[in-house]
Amino acid sequence: MLPVAIDINGGDRGPAEILSGARDAAALGIPIMLVAQTGTLDGLETGQLAIMTCSEIIDMDEDPARGVRTKKDSTLVRAAEAVRDHRASAFLSAGNTGATMASALLRMGRIKGVARPAIATPIPVPGSTPTVLLDAGANAECTAHFLIQFAQMGSVYARRRYGIERPRVGLLSIGEEDGKGNALTKETNEQLRAGAAGPDVNFIGNVEGRDIMSNDVDVVVTDGFTGNVVLKTLEGGLKFLVGKVFEALMANDETRAAAKVILPFLAPTAEAMDADSYGGAMLLGVDGVCIISHGSSSARAIVNAAKVARDMVEGDLVGALRAAVAPTP
Amino acid sequence: MLPVAIDINGGDRGPAEILSGARDAAALGIPIMLVAQTGTLDGLETGQLAIMTCSEIIDMDEDPARGVRTKKDSTLVRAAEAVRDHRASAFLSAGNTGATMASALLRMGRIKGVARPAIATPIPVPGSTPTVLLDAGANAECTAHFLIQFAQMGSVYARRRYGIERPRVGLLSIGEEDGKGNALTKETNEQLRAGAAGPDVNFIGNVEGRDIMSNDVDVVVTDGFTGNVVLKTLEGGLKFLVGKVFEALMANDETRAAAKVILPFLAPTAEAMDADSYGGAMLLGVDGVCIISHGSSSARAIVNAAKVARDMVEGDLVGALRAAVAPTP
Repeated sequence: MLPVAIDINGGDRGPAEILSGARDAAALGIPIMLVAQTGTLDGLETGQLAIMTCSEIIDMDEDPARGVRTKKDSTLVRAAEAVRDHRASAFLSAGNTGATMASALLRMGRIKGVARPAIATPIPVPGSTPTVLLDAGANAECTAHFLIQFAQMGSVYARRRYGIERPRVGLLSIGEEDGKGNALTKETNEQLRAGAAGPDVNFIGNVEGRDIMSNDVDVVVTDGFTGNVVLKTLEGGLKFLVGKVFEALMANDETRAAAKVILPFLAPTAEAMDADSYGGAMLLGVDGVCIISHGSSSARAIVNAAKVARDMVEGDLVGALRAAVAPTP
Repeated sequence: MLPVAIDINGGDRGPAEILSGARDAAALGIPIMLVAQTGTLDGLETGQLAIMTCSEIIDMDEDPARGVRTKKDSTLVRAAEAVRDHRASAFLSAGNTGATMASALLRMGRIKGVARPAIATPIPVPGSTPTVLLDAGANAECTAHFLIQFAQMGSVYARRRYGIERPRVGLLSIGEEDGKGNALTKETNEQLRAGAAGPDVNFIGNVEGRDIMSNDVDVVVTDGFTGNVVLKTLEGGLKFLVGKVFEALMANDETRAAAKVILPFLAPTAEAMDADSYGGAMLLGVDGVCIISHGSSSARAIVNAAKVARDMVEGDLVGALRAAVAPTP
């Protein structure tokens, strides 16, 4: 397969960390292309990896649209062009999320028929497969038509990525009954009930916030405003609680001794909930594989993201998405 | 003060549990009136408590609007009427949330000038005062005008209930910058920045989901769809994680012994996060004090709710809300 283009300048931990992940991914046999600003790799060990050099980077807090418009020789724009031009099979970045999306959208374009690409984020459910939440933030305003396509794309993604044969797709609302919710969810529910997403989408009805971290649903569909709020609320709440648990475990010598007994039993949950295990979110609906990794991604996160990229390229995710959104003949 | 009317038939744990809380509240000197369906209190110890008997109840899963319309002699409708008719100072129920709201709205009416009452729910932040989230579910569709009033009412409530002199009010969005969000948050942000909520509202700008369980904001304003999703997402996520921690603590004899050392240090967090500590949510904007307790409320939750009711009546919350939403002369 063509190499996975990795944005070396993205992420909070700096280029050496991202490069380390890229090297580890290459060691697993995944073809890699480093995309880096001139000078970034000086003094770093890049081995035999392919390198594409650019003159600019779009900063983490730079305005995405302006960045992509004005910085045509940036790592993000060039990485997306590499996918478009069939010099790379996928691209991934832990950098500016908005600019990653905008680069993918503007350079790779949308899959024919897709109204709006969506960010699909796996929400960890220790002991079970993750719940795929989409849209996690690409589209603050949505229509029922967008959400129906999210149901189609999320369903394909859960099947390809987690091997769930017939993923249960829920519409996020404020009550399980069909009539509950706002105007958007009511209309979307009605259309999904009427089969608007086609026979391949196993729509189970409305779900509530408390169902997201459960084994009762595989794909949760919502607009990008609600999805992003949900994602950050969960991150904040869980981080807060984990912090309190660790404070208790580390309170004094006696608790630290007791913690040694407890921690091995907490480890599987901690591992499952670690964002680095997941390899990042996927921008579904653009014409190529684009992975948006967490800003704080470690080398391990980059390896996992590269693995996901490889699997999605080899499994032809884009082809499956194209088929899923195509109008029934 | 006039008694607090308590709906004995509301709640998942049955009348004996609610009654037990009512008795405990009375023992603290809070005047109480029991509102119960005929026969419910038979064989139960009600002591000297005032009792109002009704012929009907609105079930937990009954349609709220229809329930209130057709069951005019139900505990919820009668309790709300008791407040309206100055026979009670406040009413609280752990029953059907929608029917509690509808009873309060239709029988007590709105405070003059309030466009829409909102549910204000305290989100626990162990180690700090709770964050007041509103609207937590009363209004699935909102306008900027509603949200500006939520900012005013939430601010008054945080001041009265938690003694925060100048509560920091944030608008829930998907980025801290003023321009981030959907059409509703953009318009609301603009108006709040322009001072539409008046000088008594300390608007700190947009906040994100991760700020809710933090000490960075006191009042989080959002529409009732997003607010309800946030509330249930947090409940679900935290419950899930707490379950995993307890599984680890109770894994075997050795971990159970270690848990005895750890648990006292987890207790303050567990206590702070226990919904029963909070006494329920408040319906702000109706012309009287109305507390919506969790369906699973214990006797302790009812006592805490009755205390909140007393404090809000004695502190004239309704008068303060009336003043807060009055147009500046």
